[in-house]
Amino acid sequence: MNGIGAHEIIIETPEHAQRLEALPESQVEKVLWSYRDRILDLERDERLRYVLILKNQGWAAGSALNHTHSQIIATPVIPKLVKEKLDGAKSYYDYKERCIFCDMIRQELADTARVVEETRHFIVFTPFAPRFPFEVWIYPKKHSCAYADISKEEIMDLSRSLRNTLQRIGNVLDNPPYNYMLYTAPNRVPRRGHWHTLNDDFHWHLEIMPRLTRVAGFEWGSGFYINPTPPEDAAKHLRNAKL
Amino acid sequence: MNGIGAHEIIIETPEHAQRLEALPESQVEKVLWSYRDRILDLERDERLRYVLILKNQGWAAGSALNHTHSQIIATPVIPKLVKEKLDGAKSYYDYKERCIFCDMIRQELADTARVVEETRHFIVFTPFAPRFPFEVWIYPKKHSCAYADISKEEIMDLSRSLRNTLQRIGNVLDNPPYNYMLYTAPNRVPRRGHWHTLNDDFHWHLEIMPRLTRVAGFEWGSGFYINPTPPEDAAKHLRNAKL
Repeated sequence: MNGIGAHEIIIETPEHAQRLEALPESQVEKVLWSYRDRILDLERDERLRYVLILKNQGWAAGSALNHTHSQIIATPVIPKLVKEKLDGAKSYYDYKERCIFCDMIRQELADTARVVEETRHFIVFTPFAPRFPFEVWIYPKKHSCAYADISKEEIMDLSRSLRNTLQRIGNVLDNPPYNYMLYTAPNRVPRRGHWHTLNDDFHWHLEIMPRLTRVAGFEWGSGFYINPTPPEDAAKHLRNAKL
Repeated sequence: MNGIGAHEIIIETPEHAQRLEALPESQVEKVLWSYRDRILDLERDERLRYVLILKNQGWAAGSALNHTHSQIIATPVIPKLVKEKLDGAKSYYDYKERCIFCDMIRQELADTARVVEETRHFIVFTPFAPRFPFEVWIYPKKHSCAYADISKEEIMDLSRSLRNTLQRIGNVLDNPPYNYMLYTAPNRVPRRGHWHTLNDDFHWHLEIMPRLTRVAGFEWGSGFYINPTPPEDAAKHLRNAKL
C-alpha cells in the first residue's frame, strides 16, 4: 500500500439551504450520474483499490459543511468493513452457490413486512437486524456487483427511490441527520490476488442510517448495536409516510 | 446462544454532580474492586460468555444519566470486537510465540514518545495508530489475561493511574465527554471449543476514548478512522498536564 488517495466533494445544488431530498428528481439524477462518472474516472488509476461514496447530512451525522454535498473517498486499500462484506458474500456464495444479496431480495419480497417501497428496478427495505432505528437499505433487483455498470433507466428509477426514501425519513422523523454509503465492487483492474469471483458474489447497494441514537461505550467496546426499534415497525411508518 | 444476559450499573459515588476523576483515590479504588467482584460473580453463570465493563461520561459519549456511573454488560456470546482482538492476539502468538500486548509494552517503553505515565504496575500510553484524538490505553505490565486476577497492590496503582489519566484528559481538553472500556478474557469456564491458549495470548487492558470528533459516513462506511492528532503530540500534552 502506498500513501495515495482521492477525496472529492460533489456539491449537489447551487442553492445553499436545501437538503438532497428537497431537490427535483432530475437534480438527484444528476448527482447519481456524477457518482458513476467519478468512480469510472478514479478507477482508471490502478493504485486506487476502492472508491467509497457517502453522504453526511447534518451536524450529528458528522457533516462539516451546511451546503448539501456528497463525498467520494478513494483509498489504496479495500476498507476494513468493505473487506468484511466481500468476505461474507464470498463465503455465502461458496456454500450456497447463490448471491446473498439476491437471496435477501427474494426473502424480503416474499415476507413484505420490512419492505418500504418496490419499484421496477429497486427494493427499499429495513434490514432484518438493523444497527440503528430506521436504518434503510436500497438494493438493485438485477444482480450487478458494480454501481458503475448502472443503466440510464436504473438511474432514473434510483433517483426516484432514493428521493422518496429520504423524504419518508424526513417526514416520519422530522428531518433527522443521516448518513448514507454506496457499497460497490473494488476496482476491477486485473492484478495479482484480484477478487475473481466478485461478479458473482457481490451486489452493489446503498445503506441509509438516520442518526437518532448516540453511539456509546457498549457499541464501541463490543461492535454490537442496541436498537430499540423493530425493523417491521420502522418499515410500516416509512411505508405510510406522506410523499 | 440463548437470550440471556446481565446489565448492571455501578454508581460510583453518592454525590450527584461529580466526575469519576474528581473523586478521592480511595473511591476510585472501590469502583475498581466492584468491577472485579461483579466479573467474578457473573462468571459463575456459565451461560454468560463475556463480561464487558464500560463507562460513558457525558451526553456526547452516550451517557443517559448525569450521575457518574459505570456499566457492566454480560452477554451469552463473545462480542464481535472482542472476538477480533482475541483472534488477532492468538495469531500473533502463534507466529511469534510472544504476547502482542507484552511486545507493545516493551516497544512503547523503549521508544517513550507515546508514554503518558509509567508506574510500578502500569503503563499509560497513546497507541501507535489511535482511532480518535487523545485516545489513551492503560496496560498492566505483568502479563495476565483476566482483570479478575488483579492484586491489591495493582488495584491501588491502577486507581491512581486511571484517576491521573482522566484528570490529564480533563485538564488538557476541558473536561470532554469520554468512554472507556475494560477488555478482559472471556469467561474461562471449561467447555467445548473453549479458548485454550487464552492465558498466554491475551492480556487484559483498558481503553479510554475522549469524544472530540464526530463519527461520520467515512468511518461508518469503511471501518477506518480519520484522526487529525498524532499520538506523540497527544502524549506530550497529557504528560505535561498539571495534576
